[in-house]
This record gives sequence, structure tokens and C-alpha cells, in this order.
Amino acid sequence: MSDLILVLNAGSSSIKFQAFEAPALDLLWSGQMEGIGAAPHFMARDAARHILAEWRGAAGDHRAALGIIIAWLKGAMAGRRISAIGHRVVHGGPDFAAPVTINGPVLRRLEALAALAPLHQPSNLAGVRAAMEHFPGVPQIACFDTAFHRGHPWEADSFALPSEFHARGIRRYGFHGLSYEYIARRLAAEDPALGRGRLIVAHLGNGASLCAIRDGRSLDSTMGFTALDGVPMGTRCGRIDPGVVLHLIQAEGMTPAEVVRLLYKESGLKGLSGLSQDVRDLEASSRPEASLALSYFAWHVRREIGALAAALGGLDALVFTAGIGENAAQMRRRICDGLGFLGIALDQKRNADGAGEISPTGAPVKVLIRRTDEERMIAEHVQAVLTAGDAVAA
Amino acid sequence: MSDLILVLNAGSSSIKFQAFEAPALDLLWSGQMEGIGAAPHFMARDAARHILAEWRGAAGDHRAALGIIIAWLKGAMAGRRISAIGHRVVHGGPDFAAPVTINGPVLRRLEALAALAPLHQPSNLAGVRAAMEHFPGVPQIACFDTAFHRGHPWEADSFALPSEFHARGIRRYGFHGLSYEYIARRLAAEDPALGRGRLIVAHLGNGASLCAIRDGRSLDSTMGFTALDGVPMGTRCGRIDPGVVLHLIQAEGMTPAEVVRLLYKESGLKGLSGLSQDVRDLEASSRPEASLALSYFAWHVRREIGALAAALGGLDALVFTAGIGENAAQMRRRICDGLGFLGIALDQKRNADGAGEISPTGAPVKVLIRRTDEERMIAEHVQAVLTAGDAVAA
Repeated sequence: MSDLILVLNAGSSSIKFQAFEAPALDLLWSGQMEGIGAAPHFMARDAARHILAEWRGAAGDHRAALGIIIAWLKGAMAGRRISAIGHRVVHGGPDFAAPVTINGPVLRRLEALAALAPLHQPSNLAGVRAAMEHFPGVPQIACFDTAFHRGHPWEADSFALPSEFHARGIRRYGFHGLSYEYIARRLAAEDPALGRGRLIVAHLGNGASLCAIRDGRSLDSTMGFTALDGVPMGTRCGRIDPGVVLHLIQAEGMTPAEVVRLLYKESGLKGLSGLSQDVRDLEASSRPEASLALSYFAWHVRREIGALAAALGGLDALVFTAGIGENAAQMRRRICDGLGFLGIALDQKRNADGAGEISPTGAPVKVLIRRTDEERMIAEHVQAVLTAGDAVAA
Repeated sequence: MSDLILVLNAGSSSIKFQAFEAPALDLLWSGQMEGIGAAPHFMARDAARHILAEWRGAAGDHRAALGIIIAWLKGAMAGRRISAIGHRVVHGGPDFAAPVTINGPVLRRLEALAALAPLHQPSNLAGVRAAMEHFPGVPQIACFDTAFHRGHPWEADSFALPSEFHARGIRRYGFHGLSYEYIARRLAAEDPALGRGRLIVAHLGNGASLCAIRDGRSLDSTMGFTALDGVPMGTRCGRIDPGVVLHLIQAEGMTPAEVVRLLYKESGLKGLSGLSQDVRDLEASSRPEASLALSYFAWHVRREIGALAAALGGLDALVFTAGIGENAAQMRRRICDGLGFLGIALDQKRNADGAGEISPTGAPVKVLIRRTDEERMIAEHVQAVLTAGDAVAA
């Protein structure tokens, strides 16, 4: 019987998992434990999304949550073996430009990066530690949201601050790298010429960013040091004048923690509309605020497409992915309206149908929809590390 | 004998003046008092920039400085009359979309806007008050750096914050409006079809921003709430992840005042290069940091040109103005390299010569150099207010 690769994505109150069968990487099971520390709720599904198991329990920590996931998996595995575990880790800092096998020193380096991603890194690493305890002999491999962007040219990696700030890690890391890498690889496999071309991938979900990719490598991205920058998101502000942050603290007397809460949790589509952070709700609403918030989102995505096209020196394809990118036909239309000067056009029927290629046949810029799959990207990385060892000694 | 229009630009330690002869608005004299409060130094020149007078004195305030300017002017005027005084005022807030005659209530409204521009507004108004004392019967007219941008669509005027923030004035005001308006009017006079077209004006000086103009009106600009946002500048950071500001305060223990100083005074070209804030110094340097800083500046200007082209839906002309824009041929070339996808190309000889039109004849996008003249724009506004009354009752 074949081995399994387990992929874990540990957040502050949830652990998501997927189990892939090696070497073909067929998805066997996916699921999650949610409500960790409050009202835990476990669910497991098969590859067709049918529910295989569900469980509700009392408060526990990441270790206890992973114990329940493992207890279910052991029954489902029927004697198969987990050959390695891949972990989604948000921040690899300046140095980790590729997946890495986690040992004690690596774990300490990743813990030291928590200050760069205080909302996510500690939970990610709690998942890693729990998995190391449960599977002491199994390779644990960290895959980073930042790694794909580590080849950015200096101009895209730096803020215009004194150079010691860059040296001590205040950089434009970029995120959603596993999603961009997945899309870039799939496009290169489908169409090698396009895979060497100039791409903008719009990862538009509840978190949203865009990435400029040339010759399969990230050149620039709209997210910077944190997951706040770039385009507006469900509840995050996106690009904002740094003077606003200083004004809120100095002139309006807000504490930095209150500003963090405002910019991460109360802004974006939710703040603009006063109604919802969800594009589907806003599209269903007849309120003018809903329409304005959608128009705002499209305007700023369009603006970043123009900016990234300038970084690339032109454009061969625009790819929509993630929740909004894959499913919101009306939003795709709003975004592409007015981008004809870049060679972007939509075939309205294909767009409404959510086809893979939604530009007219023969258009100068291909506009595509691709489903992203960050967990599968992690599984592919894990398999590559098992085969070849760490791609880059970090 | 004809009347004069006096234009004043009062900064924190200087008052600049220009005197124009109405109605033709020929420049008669220009000059400034620098070092107010420290080591005052007065200089006056004629229209050909020949020095007519120079004076050094002891510390004084804005009122005393203006007194010296006026003493010199009264002699030079030889009996002519000042019919009105135009003041450059950085911030008109959400309401002042046009020049306004200053009276007591207007002055109080402008003082209330000081929180939005604490580095400039108080000095501007100190100049206004001094001029009102010295010329009690003469109309004093405020012309704003923000006014030209007040017609921005909501998407360009707002941050993605809850709507009450927009209502209480946290908006993307934009600056350098007098410069943009001057350029837009001149282009419309030269070439009415182009004046109705889609323009990007790059005002690149020690302060720098870009403006998207359609049909003679500002549509979007790279500066937002303060003069920090957008492209990097001599000592200012330009666009920066708001998370960096929060990180410096929360994780590194900087005070907000220290962050203000860092972002306004120690960043930009100066911070990046560690050498100089001046493009001329950096171009003359053989140090790699100098070259990187110049490349960084060009990269980010190029990125904003792409973003503004997206806001405009395409581009008919790119206009360079202000110190760097008018004089730095090498920087113009760096910026335009890689923008061929927008139809931008340079005739290298014309660019090196600093010709008015530096794109090849017949190019799809005209690339132009125009000298800006904010003081003349103010004089034109003053004359229009004298003729017609306030353009807009604010």
C-alpha cells in the first residue's frame, strides 16, 4: 500500500488538513478542526466532499485538536503510513526561499519570525510542534507563503527607508506565494510559452493580493511587509497613506492596538459598505453602499493591475483565482472594464459561465480563471523534498 | 500705471514672493526671505533673475519678515498699487474646491484644517495673517494645493475604512494641485484636443507626486491624506505598508513622533542611498547605492504611471515637470524604459536636449516636458477672483 502525505494548515482557532496518496498525489481526505479553545468541531470529507465523520467536543489546544484529527486518520488509513507532513507557515522571513525540513534550529528561527506575522506565525508553529510530538520520526516540512517572492528585485523588495531597515527584515515580503506558485506551475505545464511570459495573477479571496510573474518567477506583489497592504480586502484596508496611521494615533488618540483592529478587522469591503465583507452579499444587495464598495474594490484591483503591468513591462495573461477570482463573474467584469488599453477584454458569455479562458479567442492578453490549491502545492513540495532533500539549504 | 498682484508662499522658515503686473501678468520681481527665526536673508530679483537687493538681519517672525519684503516692494513699486494678494495654502480640506477670498470666518476654517497638514498649514496662515495686518484693505485670496483634486471620484478620494472616517475628513486629498492645474491649462491652450485627453503629469521635485487628468480635471493622484504617500521623494518614503508604521511603534518601540521624523526626513532617496536626497548628486556618484536609489525611484514612478493609466483607461500624454521632471534627462529615460506597452517612447536626442516634446514624432503617447509655475497659477486665480468674485462659494 502507498504512503500518505499529510498537509496541515494551523490557524489561531483551527487546523485544516488534507491527506494525499503518494506518489500520484490523489487527494484522499480533507477536513478541519475548528473552534479550538472554544467549541471544537471536527469534520472529515472524502475527495468528492462527502462527509465521512463529524465530531463536537469541549475546549482544547492545538495538540489535543491534532490528536483528534490523527485518531480519525489512523482509522481511515487502514495500515497505511504517513511518510511526511507539510505545514503551511505564513512567514519564512528574508532567508527561507524554499520549503525546509524542520528541526530544532529551524523551528527556533521560525519562532523568531513571529514578530513579523504575530497574527499567524505562532498558530502555524503550534501546529508544527503538535505534529512533531505526535509523529516524532516523520519528516516535517515547512512551506512558506513568502518563499515564492524571495527573488524579487531589490526595488520591489525594499521600502524607501534607510538601508538598515531592510537589513533587519523590514521588507516587502509578499504573501499568497503558495497559491501563485501553484498557478504559475500549472500554466507552465499547460502552455510552456505562456509559462515563460508576463503574468499577473489576481488571488482575490477574503485576503487578496496580486502578483506579477515573469518566466515563472515572482517579480512583484501588492502585499508588502504585512497582509494589510495592496488591494482592499474583506475586512482589511489595503494600501493606505502611512500618514493616516500616524494621524489616528497622534491627532485622534487611538492606541496602536486599536488601529491594528481597525485596519485588519473593520475596514475593506466591510468598512466601506457597512454591510458585509462578502462580495456575494454585496452583489445581492440593492443598497448604494454595497455598489460603491464593489466599485471601490474593482477600481483598486484595476489600479494594481496597471502598476504590476508596468513592473512587467507589459502583459501576456491575467489569471483570476481564489474565492472571488474564481466565482464572482460580475466582479471580474467590473475589474476588466477599462483595461482595454492593456489588451484585456472579456468574452461576456465565457465570463458568466466561469470558463477557463474568458477572453475572446485570439485576444492579445489571455484572461483566465484557474482554481488555486495551496494544499496540493504543499504536497508537491513535500514530495520533492522527500525525493531530493531540501531544495535550498536555508 | 498698472496694479500689481502679489503672490506669497509662506513656509515654516521662509516667505517667497512674486509680483505680477496686471492684467498681462508679467512677472516683475521675485524673491524670498529665508531663515526666519534664525538668520534672516532677504533677496529680490527681477524677471531675468538678476539680483536687485539682498539683506541679512537678525531673527524675526513672519510678520517682521513680511515687513521687510514690503519695505523693499514699496520702493520698487514706485507708486503702483497692490490690488490683491494670493496665498499658497497647502490644505483646503474637503470643502474648498477653488480659491477663496479670506475673511475672518474663512481664516478660522483654514486654521481648523491645521491638523491635516501640521507641517505646512500653520506657516501658510502665519503669512496670511501678516499680510492682512500689513494690507488691511487689500483682498487676500487663498489658493490651495488640494483644490484641483476635489472632483476625484469617490473610489480615488476614499480609503477603505469605515465611512465615518471619510465623513470626518480622512480622505485622499492629493497635493501639488496648483502645479497640475497650471500644466493642464497650458496644454489645453496649446492643443485643445490633448487638453481633453488622458494625461499623466509627473510632478517630480523634492516633493513628488503624479496626477491622472482627464478632460482637464484631476481623476486620481498618488498622494493621499498627507504628502508622504505615493512615489519615494528626496527624504520622504512614499507608499509604505501601514503595517510597517505599526511594527515600528509596537515591536520596535519607536514613538509616533520618531516615525514621523523617519518617514518625512530620513527616508526616500536620502535613506535609500545614505548619500544624498538630490538626484543630481546621485547621478554624479559612482557608488552602487546611488545607482540603486535612482533605479528604485524610477521603478516606483513607473509603477504609479501604470496605476494611473489604469485609472484613466489608457494614456494620451505623459508630462514631466518640476525640478527632476524638467531637468533630469537620465531619470526621464530610466522611468520611460519599459513603458513601451503603454505607447511611451523617447527620442533620446530630444530627451537629452530637454525639448518640449521628447517622444518621437507621431508616437501614440506624447511625452512632454513643461515648466510648472505655481505662483503664476495663483496670480491667474487671483485675477479671476478679482474679475468674477469667488469661483465657488465654499
